[in-house]
Amino acid sequence: MADTLAALRSLMASHSPPLDALVVPSEDYHQSEYVSARDKRREFVSGFTGSAGLALITKNEARLWTDGRYFLQATQQLSDQWQLMRMGEDPTVDVWMADNLPEGSAIGIDPWCASINTAQLWERAFAKKQQKLVQTSTNLVDEVWNNRPPVEINPVIVHPLEYAGRSVVDKLKDLRQKIVQGNARGIIISALDEVAWLYNIRGTDVAYSPVVHAFAIVTSKSAFFYVDKRKVSAEVNSYLEEYGIAVRDYKAVSSDVALLASNQLKPSSTVKGTEAEKGNGGNKAEETDNDLIWADPGSCCYALYSRLNPEKVILQQSPLALAKALKNPVELEGLKKAHIRDGAAVVQYLVWFDKQAQEIYGASGFFSEGEATDKKNHSKTAKLTEVTVSDKLEGFRASKENFRGLSFPTISSVGPNAAIIHYSPEAETCAEFDPDSIYLFDSGAQYLDGTTDITRTVHFGKPSAHEKACYTAVLKGHIGLGNARFPNGTNGHALDILARVPLWKSGLDYRHGTGHGIGSYLNVHEGPHLISFRPHARNVPLQASMTVTDEPGYYEDGNFGIRLENVLIVNEADTKFNFGDKGYLQFEHITWAPYQRKLIDLSLLVPEELEWLNTYHSKCKDILAPYLDESEKAWLKKATEPISV
Amino acid sequence: MADTLAALRSLMASHSPPLDALVVPSEDYHQSEYVSARDKRREFVSGFTGSAGLALITKNEARLWTDGRYFLQATQQLSDQWQLMRMGEDPTVDVWMADNLPEGSAIGIDPWCASINTAQLWERAFAKKQQKLVQTSTNLVDEVWNNRPPVEINPVIVHPLEYAGRSVVDKLKDLRQKIVQGNARGIIISALDEVAWLYNIRGTDVAYSPVVHAFAIVTSKSAFFYVDKRKVSAEVNSYLEEYGIAVRDYKAVSSDVALLASNQLKPSSTVKGTEAEKGNGGNKAEETDNDLIWADPGSCCYALYSRLNPEKVILQQSPLALAKALKNPVELEGLKKAHIRDGAAVVQYLVWFDKQAQEIYGASGFFSEGEATDKKNHSKTAKLTEVTVSDKLEGFRASKENFRGLSFPTISSVGPNAAIIHYSPEAETCAEFDPDSIYLFDSGAQYLDGTTDITRTVHFGKPSAHEKACYTAVLKGHIGLGNARFPNGTNGHALDILARVPLWKSGLDYRHGTGHGIGSYLNVHEGPHLISFRPHARNVPLQASMTVTDEPGYYEDGNFGIRLENVLIVNEADTKFNFGDKGYLQFEHITWAPYQRKLIDLSLLVPEELEWLNTYHSKCKDILAPYLDESEKAWLKKATEPISV
Repeated sequence: MADTLAALRSLMASHSPPLDALVVPSEDYHQSEYVSARDKRREFVSGFTGSAGLALITKNEARLWTDGRYFLQATQQLSDQWQLMRMGEDPTVDVWMADNLPEGSAIGIDPWCASINTAQLWERAFAKKQQKLVQTSTNLVDEVWNNRPPVEINPVIVHPLEYAGRSVVDKLKDLRQKIVQGNARGIIISALDEVAWLYNIRGTDVAYSPVVHAFAIVTSKSAFFYVDKRKVSAEVNSYLEEYGIAVRDYKAVSSDVALLASNQLKPSSTVKGTEAEKGNGGNKAEETDNDLIWADPGSCCYALYSRLNPEKVILQQSPLALAKALKNPVELEGLKKAHIRDGAAVVQYLVWFDKQAQEIYGASGFFSEGEATDKKNHSKTAKLTEVTVSDKLEGFRASKENFRGLSFPTISSVGPNAAIIHYSPEAETCAEFDPDSIYLFDSGAQYLDGTTDITRTVHFGKPSAHEKACYTAVLKGHIGLGNARFPNGTNGHALDILARVPLWKSGLDYRHGTGHGIGSYLNVHEGPHLISFRPHARNVPLQASMTVTDEPGYYEDGNFGIRLENVLIVNEADTKFNFGDKGYLQFEHITWAPYQRKLIDLSLLVPEELEWLNTYHSKCKDILAPYLDESEKAWLKKATEPISV
Repeated sequence: MADTLAALRSLMASHSPPLDALVVPSEDYHQSEYVSARDKRREFVSGFTGSAGLALITKNEARLWTDGRYFLQATQQLSDQWQLMRMGEDPTVDVWMADNLPEGSAIGIDPWCASINTAQLWERAFAKKQQKLVQTSTNLVDEVWNNRPPVEINPVIVHPLEYAGRSVVDKLKDLRQKIVQGNARGIIISALDEVAWLYNIRGTDVAYSPVVHAFAIVTSKSAFFYVDKRKVSAEVNSYLEEYGIAVRDYKAVSSDVALLASNQLKPSSTVKGTEAEKGNGGNKAEETDNDLIWADPGSCCYALYSRLNPEKVILQQSPLALAKALKNPVELEGLKKAHIRDGAAVVQYLVWFDKQAQEIYGASGFFSEGEATDKKNHSKTAKLTEVTVSDKLEGFRASKENFRGLSFPTISSVGPNAAIIHYSPEAETCAEFDPDSIYLFDSGAQYLDGTTDITRTVHFGKPSAHEKACYTAVLKGHIGLGNARFPNGTNGHALDILARVPLWKSGLDYRHGTGHGIGSYLNVHEGPHLISFRPHARNVPLQASMTVTDEPGYYEDGNFGIRLENVLIVNEADTKFNFGDKGYLQFEHITWAPYQRKLIDLSLLVPEELEWLNTYHSKCKDILAPYLDESEKAWLKKATEPISV
């Protein structure tokens, strides 16, 4: 690592102009949350493996910014050459650079790895001290990264209509309507999940996200797909041509964006015309008065933006973000089915875990509240660790129909590790199971028909009264939000507080958002909506047919962590009245796994909450039964028995 | 009215340049919510008497914009020369003018009656069609207003320290610290309540608000008070001089602002120096490098802003807004005492009303749920109308210590009138009491030691199940908000939803905010915080020692309206934990009057709500007892009896 920094500083010094600082963000060319191994540049230079963070290397300093989920992990992983910058506590990276780098500094960045928003924010911050953001022509990290993983040629896969639910023809038609309404000539699509969703294709270029490294450009008459052509089979090529989508080399996107700007971008002659373009032969540049180019400033990189005339750019969120968030009926059906199979895997896991905890550790188990009787006895047998149990969970999921992999690294955490919000155990260093501690698992999978994400917190021994009180407060928040009804026009920021008020009563809280959208065999985190305490400019109102998670928590450093998470679908509510004719909405829970009875302090629940819990548990038992064997069914029946006070 | 419009149009035509349109806002020179009779220009030209609205007169049209509280009233009051523009439904006034007035139009306004924010918003809107905002040198309305009420010479009254709680010396010291921190030379204070608060003075220039028509300018070393000098007695003059406050003529503010801008503003030689200025003789212009002038763009008028160099202005909310909102211990004590006396008046009113309703109308009364037995019988006796009963309520208040008048026009509304959110009954046209209908009253008073604002909704006959369900939903929201705990940093926008969720469950809602700050013998509405569904740029977090109302409602056009309102004080909460070391807050209710038991559907309350209600009622009974006679105490004891389910 020391060598890496030295090598980078040498490149910075010999760069023209010489760089006073180099920014290394976590993101790839598409501003992805999860990136491929060869795109983990920030991890390579810093050693910090968390999913979010930014490295800054100056002539004699190295600093890493990350958020509250990762403070502890970063402290452990960063060498003493690095200084941790805590987001929310320390100055933001733009403010820090503007204040601490010398007047007139040159600050380098690979413009493919920074969004338009980020680059513009920094340029504004740099102005007051005549500092300059310098776009490097190569990625300096790549130059010093000797063992950088090679490019993998993973095939592009067609995502069939029986899962996608809406044809490429229809999606392109809707998109073109938006383009015309926006007075745009065309749109640049950079977000990997938007490209995959629009063209109904999937891939395996990135772990956890079934996407292909690709860009798209769509105009009112043509459509382009920029991808390593070795990934496109003849069959997939015909499929794309069928929809009038021209396949171009990944690197051609840069010159094509410039052609788009000057209205000279033409589809290749081998591509069949779409309905829209057949009229003019399909081989001319666009005949339209609109000269604006639409680029999403959050996902489009600064490199592509630099090919455009800034006066002629629409910097607005891509219309595909909302279109993708509004699930069609086939996607909704698929999501529900995937979540049932996923819930069955989770229950099988709990049944297995319960048995192991009792047999190996003498734990009292899922149902009983006694102390472990025989703790020492396990040394002779196989140990349960955070990683071995999470492998077991993956195994139960892998046995299910349509399974395609996990949707994010499983969080499997014992006791104090559960207080690390995005804890990711590693085989060598992870903790052993402890029957006297809380165990939290947050996990999900990719199925052909849907993406899942669920968190449960359990205790196989004797939880303390404090742990129960905290679990119950989290559960009350989880129910309070999940059970809400609200008028159209309400956004997730307004709703967020419903998940927190039960915690706030005792002075408890959690430092993360409460919910995110989830894809349909796509990214586990997607927008444009979110449920968050912080207001967010892009936070659109919740709308019927969106998905969103409901995941409040409570984390006590060094002791334990609690989180409960279900995926919800937003539905129209059949309210008795309809004040203001706005229409009211409510949530449908599609995640199925029991909450642990013995962690609930029943005296803290109100009748409405208890009723919700009993109804949910009863459905859970019925819905999962077909996927379970007799002993699993018996366990689930016990776990979901109606609770009366 | 026709003559008025014709006369105005004639003035518009002869103006130089000729005006295509004239804007007549509701506000006075200080952007006040409540204005004096001679400042009711918008009411004079349009005939519409509501507290909020804006009139626009063009060559051949006259339009009036107002908000949802006043749609019905405006429809009734506007002649057919006027067209009502509904805020929230129709285009905003700036958009309408930009879209509908001809290219290059000259739009006139008295720049004393428009805030900087408003004028700048309009100028931006006008730019695209080369329209121009023209500042008229006189107010054209005043020129055609023959019977305009004369200036009243109401004395400036010193507000004693035993009520104000903090000396002018200390307030000026704090303000000067803010001025220096802001790198400002001085601040222009336009809001009437800020001037009154800063100098610890009160007056009777405006109905309902105990303020004086005055401006203030404060620099790091001097302080000025611009007022009609006839209002200032020799005694008050010495009081002001004692604090180094120079009394200047009201109209001098304009030239003094220009002097301030050029650093030539000097205190008069007769004024004693403050501690700060004694050092330099107190008679020189400011010796400071700071050349910025602080003007609150929401309350400072465009006329004064035009005297400044725009490059040298700090357009930020006045620091007095927050300073005034954070009540000191003496103010808090006074507010609590004033609310107890006020609550006693409300209970006496309810006792009296209950008796009248039974005796005159044969109503079953406050406690019993029967139908009225003897409705017709009342024709021979004195009728109860919305106005006669509200006069009675005022009488009970007037009998209390420190009473100085009402804090806003009493809303006293029977049945369908209660659905009009800001209904203001008039003696000639108001409704008669109806024992079969809901009665809503929203009222408050000014006491030397505090300002009050309370709403209760009652039924003296047999409420329907629907009315009870709605009342209970409103009550649940009222309790849900009032009973919340939340970390420091939480603003009223985040909390607002707590008052709405119980209504949303059934598809009900209300079209107004949920809470506003309240003054200490000052304005009944004050900021800078508010509890509102709409996010607001100026909405600062709630902080300990603020006041805020808690007033959800439900309104069914043509049928009934429900609202419940208490004033709350924000206190530090003694939570069991203190996650994030942020400190947690909670509310203390300081309003005392019972909720009506028979309007509550107990099956809808959870134990926590019932417990809150019983505790509140029990305190109410004990706290008000010293102010009530035996029969009133007996009535209150019955009204506050513990409820068990």
